[in-house]
Amino acid sequence: MIYETVVTTMNPDGSVHIAPMGIRRKDEKYLIAPFKPSTTLDNLVNSGVAVINATTEVLIFAGCLTGRHEWPVVDATHIACKRLAAALAHVEVRVESSRDDELRPVFTCRLVHAASHAPFEGFNRAQAAVVEAAILVSRLHLLPEQKIRSELEYLGIAIKKTAGEKEQTAWRWLMEKVDDYYS
Amino acid sequence: MIYETVVTTMNPDGSVHIAPMGIRRKDEKYLIAPFKPSTTLDNLVNSGVAVINATTEVLIFAGCLTGRHEWPVVDATHIACKRLAAALAHVEVRVESSRDDELRPVFTCRLVHAASHAPFEGFNRAQAAVVEAAILVSRLHLLPEQKIRSELEYLGIAIKKTAGEKEQTAWRWLMEKVDDYYS
Repeated sequence: MIYETVVTTMNPDGSVHIAPMGIRRKDEKYLIAPFKPSTTLDNLVNSGVAVINATTEVLIFAGCLTGRHEWPVVDATHIACKRLAAALAHVEVRVESSRDDELRPVFTCRLVHAASHAPFEGFNRAQAAVVEAAILVSRLHLLPEQKIRSELEYLGIAIKKTAGEKEQTAWRWLMEKVDDYYS
Repeated sequence: MIYETVVTTMNPDGSVHIAPMGIRRKDEKYLIAPFKPSTTLDNLVNSGVAVINATTEVLIFAGCLTGRHEWPVVDATHIACKRLAAALAHVEVRVESSRDDELRPVFTCRLVHAASHAPFEGFNRAQAAVVEAAILVSRLHLLPEQKIRSELEYLGIAIKKTAGEKEQTAWRWLMEKVDDYYS
């Protein structure tokens, strides 16, 4: 099972790095597999801690993929790290071990602290469509344009039917990036 | 903005009725628009109360569409109703007013009580795919087979990549219903 979350880690200069990432659970452990190279990878190696943020704030997913990296954070409580202010829930984890890999090294992390901040309100089809579109946008260089276009057309239906303002904005950011890429 | 939730209402005999339903928020109100005719509609008229359950338990969405209507519930705390045991969060609402409609009457409800029970863990693409497939399955009689098949094929990719056991079971229930319908 993979959860699409936002991982926050600390840069060496004390600033926070915010990155959408698919996280696996295995028994009681959290598996984080950042791409090589990436800032999240460097920060996990250097600091040994991370926060896994569960949020429905799709602006953050779309924003991080379109050059909008600044989002409100607050201090974590049990590790030297930050969490998203918009997290519905978050877990603070510490790296226990890592397995190197040419493409995606895997960090096995143990739970240090978990907290909930706001209620889940239910599935929203537009939010799910933004997440799918964000994944497509992260793979523009890997997939044929025809596939990208036809999947986005399908996903756009849920945006039209069920989006709020934030989902519409997130969708627009992603579509601008797609248009830029192919222009 | 529409949230895909599970609405629980009380039948006249004291048993609970469980129905997946898209809910709108408008200002501080919750809008429930059950199809006519439906048990949820009758129960809202008769009892004037409902629970809106926010759950990521996709077995319930797929189950209710495939003849599996029994799911664990517990008593609501502020109204004479039940909530899903599997709700991550729920709101207890009372009908304030209703607007009749040939297809879907709209009940405007006010919040009586809200509670959270378990943390949101993040988006899961397979859960979203089950929700989309459940909506397709509810419209088998309205949509051309070719459209149903091609959308399910696309949604199946997220199932293969990101599903846990529950999502796989929910998907299988829905696919069995599709196969039965066309056989």
